[in-house]
Amino acid sequence: MSTADPVAIARALLTCPSVTPAEGGALTTLEALLKPAGFTVDRPVFSAPDTPDVENLFAAIGGGERHLCFAGHTDVVPPGDVAAWSHGPFEGAIVDGLLYGRGAVDMKGGVAAFAAAALDFVAERGPDFGGRLSFLITGDEEGPGVNGTVKLLEWAAARGEKLTACVVGEPTNPSVLGEAIKIGRRGSLSGTIVIRGVQGHVAYPHLADNPIRALPAFVTALCVPPLDRGSPDFQPSNLEVTTVDTGNPATNVIPAAVRLAFNVRFNDHWTIESLKAELRDRTARAAQDEALRGSGAPLVDYELAFETTASDCFLTTAPDLVEGVADAVEAVVGRRPELSTGGGTSDARFVKNYCPVVEFGLVGDTMHKVDERVPVADLLTLKRIYRTFLDRYFPV
Amino acid sequence: MSTADPVAIARALLTCPSVTPAEGGALTTLEALLKPAGFTVDRPVFSAPDTPDVENLFAAIGGGERHLCFAGHTDVVPPGDVAAWSHGPFEGAIVDGLLYGRGAVDMKGGVAAFAAAALDFVAERGPDFGGRLSFLITGDEEGPGVNGTVKLLEWAAARGEKLTACVVGEPTNPSVLGEAIKIGRRGSLSGTIVIRGVQGHVAYPHLADNPIRALPAFVTALCVPPLDRGSPDFQPSNLEVTTVDTGNPATNVIPAAVRLAFNVRFNDHWTIESLKAELRDRTARAAQDEALRGSGAPLVDYELAFETTASDCFLTTAPDLVEGVADAVEAVVGRRPELSTGGGTSDARFVKNYCPVVEFGLVGDTMHKVDERVPVADLLTLKRIYRTFLDRYFPV
Repeated sequence: MSTADPVAIARALLTCPSVTPAEGGALTTLEALLKPAGFTVDRPVFSAPDTPDVENLFAAIGGGERHLCFAGHTDVVPPGDVAAWSHGPFEGAIVDGLLYGRGAVDMKGGVAAFAAAALDFVAERGPDFGGRLSFLITGDEEGPGVNGTVKLLEWAAARGEKLTACVVGEPTNPSVLGEAIKIGRRGSLSGTIVIRGVQGHVAYPHLADNPIRALPAFVTALCVPPLDRGSPDFQPSNLEVTTVDTGNPATNVIPAAVRLAFNVRFNDHWTIESLKAELRDRTARAAQDEALRGSGAPLVDYELAFETTASDCFLTTAPDLVEGVADAVEAVVGRRPELSTGGGTSDARFVKNYCPVVEFGLVGDTMHKVDERVPVADLLTLKRIYRTFLDRYFPV
Repeated sequence: MSTADPVAIARALLTCPSVTPAEGGALTTLEALLKPAGFTVDRPVFSAPDTPDVENLFAAIGGGERHLCFAGHTDVVPPGDVAAWSHGPFEGAIVDGLLYGRGAVDMKGGVAAFAAAALDFVAERGPDFGGRLSFLITGDEEGPGVNGTVKLLEWAAARGEKLTACVVGEPTNPSVLGEAIKIGRRGSLSGTIVIRGVQGHVAYPHLADNPIRALPAFVTALCVPPLDRGSPDFQPSNLEVTTVDTGNPATNVIPAAVRLAFNVRFNDHWTIESLKAELRDRTARAAQDEALRGSGAPLVDYELAFETTASDCFLTTAPDLVEGVADAVEAVVGRRPELSTGGGTSDARFVKNYCPVVEFGLVGDTMHKVDERVPVADLLTLKRIYRTFLDRYFPV
């Protein structure tokens, strides 16, 4: 019986220059692997104003109540300074047991490992293995995220696909394969505050009202006290003011307004709405405190606005998925992985609206960097982990 | 005996489109008036890298210990939206007793009034009136101020000119001619603070150090407590943070640095150096306080820098100048003017290094605005005030 080689598949994907949003041949490579194995393959293209069209791929095989989906992406971030790479970012060079290339760990390597595991699984068990197995692959994970996973999930649901579990193949291990599974993510909420004053000449401050005088109160109100001290499953929520801008080039002019932007990564102490209410309270108090010690104006004139792209915190507890993946990791590498909810957001935040989702993939230490690379051994190990999980999720 | 007409001279100057730094014919107009009256006239042009060449004028007559200089400028700020003007900004239209034009009060009208007074004075007293009378006129007061008054004063000093008193003809009256003489100005000091942290991803704040967290401490340290409560001759010193900028467009990135700029207008409680020392102390304390409650870093990494364009506070007390101009105003308009040190800076801050200087001119309410204009009556009154002062400064 033939055995699918995750290293060969990863090299084939890495030689596709699929810098987001370009397909670059990567989805075609995947289609060419899955279709002969019996998968139905669809390649929907999604569009939206002011964003590039994006190609996506949905491939599936089998039928039954249980539907395991592998979600990921084949687009990659730009290679940056190509001359700085030891080996070309799209060459697929293997040197000293390391496979080099943009996307090696984020996440063409993960896609290749799952594809190899799935091909072996289907080859051994046949298409009637008692469940459904699918690939949900986008070319818009590293881009604006508009024409990718969100729409592909909607598209699949509209066609009657009912996912019961999903593994996202993002790199989740800080330094050694098997360290960590992500079983949830903090939520994310961004917003802006514009504080308005009255423009004027610095020599005549009584005719002006400098909005920057109120800035410390607003920054402090946002940051202090901390939103919480963490929860059993999550790190503390954290707010960062990401930018403060005035744009006043004249040293003799008091500016009319100052704008700041912030982002909160929040845990299960909060919902998007309860967090918005807290931040509204904090800024309102800052404005009132400031006005009381200020020039007698009734209230500081400010505007708090939230971005529409907020995502709620989530935590996956489904044991057949969480414990199933953890068991598979332990069976292959001999260590029980940490169940983590740390770090940034991923497309898992969209998947969680459809089914339980966890993330497990390669070691992420070189992602987005020059000389992104993956040990060949890790690709083989990750394939074995995925395969072990497939066997447990779809027992004979 | 002929009597010089300040209105005719003002109109001649207003029809010269001398938008800074263009000479526009204005200095030539002045030369054509003064030379036939016996003044020596020089037109030095000054240059510097990265600034436009500027034409200047120095005209003088007479000899003796006492040397009274009239300082001013014939360049004007741009007219802005010409269509918004009731009468063209360079037409010299007189409507309902008002002379319209860019520079009518700032300060071609003042130059015209002094020229008319001086022409009459010289015509009556002759060139041997027992003293020296000069015009020090630049075309770079509304521009960068590099190739104007500063260099013209140096140039005159190098040629042996020893000023004993100077009147700057800037508009000094808030609403009625005769309200106020400026006998000093607060100093001005500008600076910047760059606070540096460590850039990173908002989801991994422990790997970053957000410089904006320290911003409130620095802004507050600069602004609170007030520098002083004023002095017998001056308003309180005042610091304004004029801009705060980060320039970080990414909502998921903690920025590496934030920069703020400030300007202080300071009174005679301070010198440039003592004020710099105070601000160094305040920022150092802010950095230490912040570091103590921060992440354990020994000190917040920041850089405080001062602009080189600082000017010291000054106060003119010379009675023959201060009381002399006040007496002249009172004699003509019947009210004793306020001796003011309020408001912004002017070229008087350069003159004060050479001789006692006061400022007295027209009513400034329309300066730099659309429809800048001066009552014809004010030009005649101002000429009489200047003439009265000339007679007192150079008694027969």
